[in-house]
Amino acid sequence: MLKGKQTWIYDNQPVIISSSAVVGPFEAGSPLADDFDLINNDLRLGEETFEKAEKKLVDQACDIAISKAKLKKDDLNLFICGDLINQIMASSFAARELGIPYLGIFGACSTSVEGLSLAALSVSSGFAKYALAATSSHNGASEKQFRYPTEYGAQKPPTAQWTVTGAGAAVVASEGQGPRIVCSTIGRVIDMGISDPFNMGAAMAPAAVDTIKMHFQDMGVDPSHYDLISTGDLGMVGHNIACELLNKEGISIPTEKFTDCGVLIYAPEQKAFAGGSGCACTATVTYGHYLNRMKKGELKRILVIATGALLSPMSYQQMESIPCIAHAVSIEM
Amino acid sequence: MLKGKQTWIYDNQPVIISSSAVVGPFEAGSPLADDFDLINNDLRLGEETFEKAEKKLVDQACDIAISKAKLKKDDLNLFICGDLINQIMASSFAARELGIPYLGIFGACSTSVEGLSLAALSVSSGFAKYALAATSSHNGASEKQFRYPTEYGAQKPPTAQWTVTGAGAAVVASEGQGPRIVCSTIGRVIDMGISDPFNMGAAMAPAAVDTIKMHFQDMGVDPSHYDLISTGDLGMVGHNIACELLNKEGISIPTEKFTDCGVLIYAPEQKAFAGGSGCACTATVTYGHYLNRMKKGELKRILVIATGALLSPMSYQQMESIPCIAHAVSIEM
Repeated sequence: MLKGKQTWIYDNQPVIISSSAVVGPFEAGSPLADDFDLINNDLRLGEETFEKAEKKLVDQACDIAISKAKLKKDDLNLFICGDLINQIMASSFAARELGIPYLGIFGACSTSVEGLSLAALSVSSGFAKYALAATSSHNGASEKQFRYPTEYGAQKPPTAQWTVTGAGAAVVASEGQGPRIVCSTIGRVIDMGISDPFNMGAAMAPAAVDTIKMHFQDMGVDPSHYDLISTGDLGMVGHNIACELLNKEGISIPTEKFTDCGVLIYAPEQKAFAGGSGCACTATVTYGHYLNRMKKGELKRILVIATGALLSPMSYQQMESIPCIAHAVSIEM
Repeated sequence: MLKGKQTWIYDNQPVIISSSAVVGPFEAGSPLADDFDLINNDLRLGEETFEKAEKKLVDQACDIAISKAKLKKDDLNLFICGDLINQIMASSFAARELGIPYLGIFGACSTSVEGLSLAALSVSSGFAKYALAATSSHNGASEKQFRYPTEYGAQKPPTAQWTVTGAGAAVVASEGQGPRIVCSTIGRVIDMGISDPFNMGAAMAPAAVDTIKMHFQDMGVDPSHYDLISTGDLGMVGHNIACELLNKEGISIPTEKFTDCGVLIYAPEQKAFAGGSGCACTATVTYGHYLNRMKKGELKRILVIATGALLSPMSYQQMESIPCIAHAVSIEM
């Protein structure tokens, strides 16, 4: 049911019965590497193009999640997937392999939580017994499409972020063992006029703050309700801006429980500028690291706010600013 | 609830309390022109680019649908939208204007029924009181992105289709007056190996047939259950192939009740090759023409099967065939 203005409470809390996180070679150096199910040592995964490699990351993540859930492809009623490539090519081609009823989505880097929320909605409403939500990004495919050919060796400012090569998937079921999806807060588009695609953390921070504020308001809770509150891919720059904006709103989240997937995923020595980004950033950190911490008993209640910069190279060329969005999901063990 | 393998039955049949269809200048010549709410006589809608014009079509369609429903933007709990432009630029920028919680989707030309089904799911499950589903396409934006600059004057084969310039929107509510959404059949990706982007009707026909077959099977009905069964944008070529394939499956739909939005939208003298295509094709014909016919009492039960070719220029360049999908929705007056 809808609570307040933007929050979906799942009546019969759906369970994440399995999840997976697969990554590329650069992510082998991640401080969270132990939480990844598979680390590919070839950026191309043996494929001819980055796009086909990204599709293979989705295949891997889905296969692992389905197999961990001890299910067969045929048992799944719904596949919800999205990515950053034009016409979400990785998702649609992965859907072709799976042969499961498929809904393609696009929420830029907020896709993981958009997909997980739709999977939870369909399961909690009895429209699917098992729903699979997945998303991916690939550093090579993103650089090529959104920025410059890497061969140019174009310099980047320190506010830039590093697109994570990886994919994450979760199998959501009406019953079973695992963390439960309590509610989601669906974000609205916020655009503060920032137009620099090398400073997306700053562009996305106000959207994250808007959704966090609406979540607390709709649910009537405060930060003490959660053991961990994590934004998606604001990176260092965006995370600091989000902290400031939250303070201005009178929302104070203790430093030790407020973090960001983009801040955590790379070690300082990896020189990933302001941190990680891309759909796979929130997906791999949440489906790998956070859910593992929940299963180990380290975290009981978490709120993940996946942030998305809904720009396209075309909108940037047409002098538009960057519309941003953030969707939050509350997960409990 | 889920019925059979792929069909969502909405327990509390959501109502389409209003809908809208807006189009561009070429569509003024449509035999269905009287059913369009607004015909723009400028392909650019006074904007600098085709993409911004397409976004404006979405604005118009949403404004008209909201105003027909006698609602204010603030009354809506959810906006579900998708289009063909890279990173669904028209949808995300329209969402920025609306300020409603937003879920971006991508299903190529199947987007209208994907969005309508998700709106129905959210409303029937109590996650939204009012949900707005919209989609758009623009001939200029599509030609530029998927094919050749129009200035080249490249010749097209007769199997090619004409992308509809337009947008359609529907406000779905838990109660009210209007046609009711009974159920949706969510399609799976079907790819028969066709790789010619100038013959998308042929590529999409098997996906339409797969979904129609699953729909009848899941619901335990046959074509006699419906007054009209319409595919989305197969066009003349794809529609004939679909008829043949259905016959092979032992499904016989009388000619007078089986049609296709892409066949109906243009008059022969408009020389639109094999017919209309684009997200706006199914959206404007369904939200304009079909729903008007239902309100006039000419049709009681219809099944619309929106078809989508999930290709991207990149997948085509990488020698991939065209993965296709079709989602069906059953609407009753």
